[in-house]
Amino acid sequence: MPKLWNDTIEAHRQAVRDAALNTAAALVAAHGAASVTMSQIAEKAGIGRATLYKYFPHVGAILSAWHERQIDAHFARLVAIRDEPAEPEVRLERVLLAYALIHQERVQHHHDEPYGAELAALLHPDEHVARAQQHLHELFRELLADAAAAGDVRGDVDPAELATYCLHALTAAGGLPSKAAAERLVAVTLAGLRQPG
Amino acid sequence: MPKLWNDTIEAHRQAVRDAALNTAAALVAAHGAASVTMSQIAEKAGIGRATLYKYFPHVGAILSAWHERQIDAHFARLVAIRDEPAEPEVRLERVLLAYALIHQERVQHHHDEPYGAELAALLHPDEHVARAQQHLHELFRELLADAAAAGDVRGDVDPAELATYCLHALTAAGGLPSKAAAERLVAVTLAGLRQPG
Repeated sequence: MPKLWNDTIEAHRQAVRDAALNTAAALVAAHGAASVTMSQIAEKAGIGRATLYKYFPHVGAILSAWHERQIDAHFARLVAIRDEPAEPEVRLERVLLAYALIHQERVQHHHDEPYGAELAALLHPDEHVARAQQHLHELFRELLADAAAAGDVRGDVDPAELATYCLHALTAAGGLPSKAAAERLVAVTLAGLRQPG
Repeated sequence: MPKLWNDTIEAHRQAVRDAALNTAAALVAAHGAASVTMSQIAEKAGIGRATLYKYFPHVGAILSAWHERQIDAHFARLVAIRDEPAEPEVRLERVLLAYALIHQERVQHHHDEPYGAELAALLHPDEHVARAQQHLHELFRELLADAAAAGDVRGDVDPAELATYCLHALTAAGGLPSKAAAERLVAVTLAGLRQPG
């Protein structure tokens, strides 16, 4: 088959997958996992039931795939912000804020949807999550090492330990009510990273 | 009955309860929840099986009670440290360090015991945990407000938000390998709390 045809098939597969993931997550968040069936997902997504079963064996598998896609999208967002050209300190601050806002949006979403908290509880930490946490730690560690080399971050604590500090401190954004509060959290977290006077 | 006799009975009840909690938690951490029975717990704790059933209906109930006792003991430790007379900044630093070390010890314990992680996973966040989190937040908020009034902590961010920051930042101690690393984490977290220059 010519390459173009392969691309078309791949794009079609991706579109079917995406429709299944979006529909499943929205149905579970709105009605609870117990009431959502493969047939409903197929119907709402505009796919045949048999086709859906070719992609996923059950609702749980769709939700897992949705969760992986969310994690990958969040990570890609942080990488894109990191790669915008700027001074190390500015890049660090932008990534810290983006990470805080991801946490805030996520918790907000759990509150807004009737079964949002249930959906979150269904998504168990698995290997994909553990690997993503490692990549995240590595991304923060490198940013902090660059900023330390530029003299913008304290040099008396290993960048790996500072990365652990940042990743934990910023999850606090999940409990904060506004973007302004998330920005204050980033300012406080950043102040902890500065060279002691 | 005279008061002394009531005290004796109460002390006896407490001793039976404590023996059951300690034994159940140790057995589950060593052998896994699936293999631990009420009979084993009674035997190892030196209590009759029928007596144990008068206190707890099943192993899960004993583990829940054990978890509550752990949480209360941790909170009591922080309150005791808070109540030692000292300047607000010193009290704040001591409580931050104690909280970080509690997290570190807990995660360490999960790693040391063959089924320590399983035990931790069995202990679901419940109402008792949620209430304890609120009390913890209140304790930190008050310490931070005192230190802010004394000029030792930044006044540009609400003590409640700073408390949320501290509680999250310090959980990072769970991933740090040594007491020295936990102390560095406390130093970094405290630096975030200082009045910006």
